[in-house]
Amino acid sequence: MLYIVLLHYPVYNKEGKIVTTAIANMDIHDIARLAKTYAAQGFYIINPIPEQRNLAQEIISHWREGYGANFNEFRRAAFELIKIKESLPDVLNDISRETGLTPKTIVTGANLSGDLLKFAGCREMLKKDNRPYLLVFGTGSGIAAEVVHMADYRLEPLKGPGNYNHLAVRSAVAIILDKVMGV
Amino acid sequence: MLYIVLLHYPVYNKEGKIVTTAIANMDIHDIARLAKTYAAQGFYIINPIPEQRNLAQEIISHWREGYGANFNEFRRAAFELIKIKESLPDVLNDISRETGLTPKTIVTGANLSGDLLKFAGCREMLKKDNRPYLLVFGTGSGIAAEVVHMADYRLEPLKGPGNYNHLAVRSAVAIILDKVMGV
Repeated sequence: MLYIVLLHYPVYNKEGKIVTTAIANMDIHDIARLAKTYAAQGFYIINPIPEQRNLAQEIISHWREGYGANFNEFRRAAFELIKIKESLPDVLNDISRETGLTPKTIVTGANLSGDLLKFAGCREMLKKDNRPYLLVFGTGSGIAAEVVHMADYRLEPLKGPGNYNHLAVRSAVAIILDKVMGV
Repeated sequence: MLYIVLLHYPVYNKEGKIVTTAIANMDIHDIARLAKTYAAQGFYIINPIPEQRNLAQEIISHWREGYGANFNEFRRAAFELIKIKESLPDVLNDISRETGLTPKTIVTGANLSGDLLKFAGCREMLKKDNRPYLLVFGTGSGIAAEVVHMADYRLEPLKGPGNYNHLAVRSAVAIILDKVMGV
């Protein structure tokens, strides 16, 4: 069981300032459609700022119950997977309550190093183990350090033929989902 | 040599109306970064409507020479790969002139069937053959039928575990580039 988590937690950017990223409309749309295509059980959007959560909820309601639901049935089906939460513990509790199982967390990031979970290993684990797994993606300057440290696994970074590695989070979710869930 | 082509040609939508899609800002950003990460030689955006091309050119200039170029060096490097053209023949001529070689075209699409080029075959071809290859992606209702018919190859569609297959073109570009150019 795979759940996608998009994290908007406060992190230090490269100038040393604390930044909490906003929820981007395009992230909601693209990742919901990816989650549905690659058979994820759910797509959690985490943001600690109430106004951000309210805005995201409005967008989601439009496509799930409002005008958009009739306008585009495929979009509605994808948006049904989305839940908005304040924190990662809230997500873990939600999944534990629903499934009766303790979820494992896998963090992603372009700069992760050390003891890494390979894509093939992740794919195998998801296939064999019926436990819920959270695949956590950061926005802006990446995933907050405390979340990386507390995670059960750190996934190997994506790699192209060169050294350039600056993808939109939407692109990273697309590629990684296909690698670990594609047929 | 791989070139990415994003096509905005008039096509019939499912209600039978002729539609030419607009250039989406997020497509420019995400696909340019993907092109740079996966070492594409260029990223061509094709739109037959002059106003659309002018608007896209303004956005690109901002990140390539304007304020954005200093604000984000990584974005500038990705945006250097972009060229905007009116038609597919214009793109073919541009590449022929620059490389002295005749490009081959590979079209993509969620609904392609029949004699298809597999991802592994495409990957092999790009590795072994030094000729320029165009990987063509459609927007909105897909690639115009005449372009599909004239193409040298039709790439196999992406597939998730289920039947749902409604991805953003940005997501499709991400996944396919990793499949044919990833290390």
